[in-house]
Amino acid sequence: EMFMDAYVVLRDDMVNGMADYEMPPDAVKYIHRMIEYNVPKGKLNRGLAVISSLRSLMQGESISDSLVFKANAAGWCIEWLQAMFLVADDVMDASITRRGQPCWYKLPEVGMNAVNDSLILESQLYGVIRKHFQGDKYYMDLLHLFQDVSYKTQLGQLLDLTSQEKDKVDLSKFTLETWERIVKYKTAFYSFYLPVAAAMMIAGITDKAAYDVASEILLDMGEYFQAQDDFLDCYGDPEYIGKIGTDIEDNKCGWLIVQALKSASQEQRSILESSYAKKDPAMVAKVKKVYKELDLEGVFAKYETESHKRISDAISKVKVMPQAPFLDLLKKIYKRSK
Amino acid sequence: EMFMDAYVVLRDDMVNGMADYEMPPDAVKYIHRMIEYNVPKGKLNRGLAVISSLRSLMQGESISDSLVFKANAAGWCIEWLQAMFLVADDVMDASITRRGQPCWYKLPEVGMNAVNDSLILESQLYGVIRKHFQGDKYYMDLLHLFQDVSYKTQLGQLLDLTSQEKDKVDLSKFTLETWERIVKYKTAFYSFYLPVAAAMMIAGITDKAAYDVASEILLDMGEYFQAQDDFLDCYGDPEYIGKIGTDIEDNKCGWLIVQALKSASQEQRSILESSYAKKDPAMVAKVKKVYKELDLEGVFAKYETESHKRISDAISKVKVMPQAPFLDLLKKIYKRSK
Ligand SMILES: [Mg+2]
Ligand SMILES: [Mg+2]
Ligand SMILES: [Mg+2]
Ligand SMILES: [Mg+2]
Ligand SMILES: [Mg+2]
Ligand SMILES: [Mg+2]
Repeated sequence: EMFMDAYVVLRDDMVNGMADYEMPPDAVKYIHRMIEYNVPKGKLNRGLAVISSLRSLMQGESISDSLVFKANAAGWCIEWLQAMFLVADDVMDASITRRGQPCWYKLPEVGMNAVNDSLILESQLYGVIRKHFQGDKYYMDLLHLFQDVSYKTQLGQLLDLTSQEKDKVDLSKFTLETWERIVKYKTAFYSFYLPVAAAMMIAGITDKAAYDVASEILLDMGEYFQAQDDFLDCYGDPEYIGKIGTDIEDNKCGWLIVQALKSASQEQRSILESSYAKKDPAMVAKVKKVYKELDLEGVFAKYETESHKRISDAISKVKVMPQAPFLDLLKKIYKRSK
Repeated sequence: EMFMDAYVVLRDDMVNGMADYEMPPDAVKYIHRMIEYNVPKGKLNRGLAVISSLRSLMQGESISDSLVFKANAAGWCIEWLQAMFLVADDVMDASITRRGQPCWYKLPEVGMNAVNDSLILESQLYGVIRKHFQGDKYYMDLLHLFQDVSYKTQLGQLLDLTSQEKDKVDLSKFTLETWERIVKYKTAFYSFYLPVAAAMMIAGITDKAAYDVASEILLDMGEYFQAQDDFLDCYGDPEYIGKIGTDIEDNKCGWLIVQALKSASQEQRSILESSYAKKDPAMVAKVKKVYKELDLEGVFAKYETESHKRISDAISKVKVMPQAPFLDLLKKIYKRSK
């Protein structure tokens, strides 16, 4: 709950700070609500990963309260970054719900203001970094890290948006290479590399080789994580994962369709081409039947085992920094069912 | 034309830099076109103001080519910032055209991708600052300047968006105080303070008092500039200003309606209340008739003279830095007719 305490401090700082900008009460209330609605939601895995990575890095050593707060502040910056992307993504995808509530832009008093709110969320996170890290030696590095990862995530979003033309199904674009690139840029950098790299900076690690090796391992983990996400979208228990998957209907370039296309017969490919990306449940069932014929559950089980081995091997070779943050993260996601 | 040369360097750097990010040719082409379509358009006044302010500051002294390039790079960052805001603003306002071409989001192959493109434009400008200023003593200050001004502009946008409820006319919200606050945050900081402050940093000015006095004068100038803009929307020559004003139809909290409400009789106010913010030309004519009765042209002429005197007086008292940048800017905008 120290993580939630840090959130309240950051949020109140921001809201109170608006007085310096002569904002009228209505605008202050709007911002307060906008933050509450969009930031401290979801599983907060990414935000919490900073403090847990820091603890792994400082194995045994005690961490001062002020350092814990810093790690949590950096963690919240990741959650702020994610909120900025989700608010914008829902506008772009014309989505209806997010994290069990209507998408922010769907609220009648918000609408397209959400576009500006996304920019505001981004500005706020740089305000947090400045306020809480400006005195630190690694301030510039941390700032550049967030800027880099943010840009990469935007490029990933661009890749995702341009990977399917609207209202047109072209499965020839759904290659493994394309999927990997989208996943790496859109998800892996901010979800896996960013929290660990932030923790490394806070822990005082300055060796570039450590960041390089962390990046390699964490991006691989991010890819595996997204493959799980795509797998669970179709094969997960809706009650357990908290939503009903619609990747097939939504013409998503997901791990399953990419794998299916790799091994489908001419006939199966035709079925996929005529049935993918249709809202009709009968069409979805046809796609799932092909997945079944191709034993994608088995293919995934094999991929999961291989990924675990590959990542474990890479971790075991790490010498420039503690292996613990990587092992912890891998343990958390291996064979997850939600 | 050295300004345009700098643009080409920055744009090509960015586009080529995408190779480091494994972007496929389609994505690179998209970004190239997105920059071309949105950045080097309009009058470029803000961008050009950096080099002209720097020349005023260094009166007489010759400026090295590399310093000229830096000033122009900073100028382009302002144009990039503006492009980011305009791309987003047009989505939020559901606008049709911008700078004589369809709004970016209106292109069929763009659509809501524009939201992400706005974020990309922002990231790119910080990339430029980092690449060209990281070695300079004032790098952090310049970066924070852009972050601050960007946040303030977003807050100004929020004030603007929440100043009128959609499809509801409530003229009681259109006070001078509200107008001034919107203008200061949404326009004045980035259009007037930002270019001069950037030039001051490049010129090596570190005295905080200089930035304070610059801010005071330039925000006042920005307010006067926006009053002109609002005035010309109704009274300017459409051929000359390049567009047909629609502030009345669009329910804008502009300088004219604010002034009209200040001196309107009960009867005139009723006419404004029932006629403002209607697409019907007959209604617009009614509003303009009230403006005529209240002699807003005369009120504006008086405001213009007073603003010029007030700003000139403030400039004449400046001792902490050269007065020239302020005098130049004031001369450029005084009694402008477009
Ligand atoms: Mg989405
Ligand atoms: Mg999306
Ligand atoms: Mg998914
Ligand atoms: Mg607009
Ligand atoms: Mg607008
Ligand atoms: Mg105007």
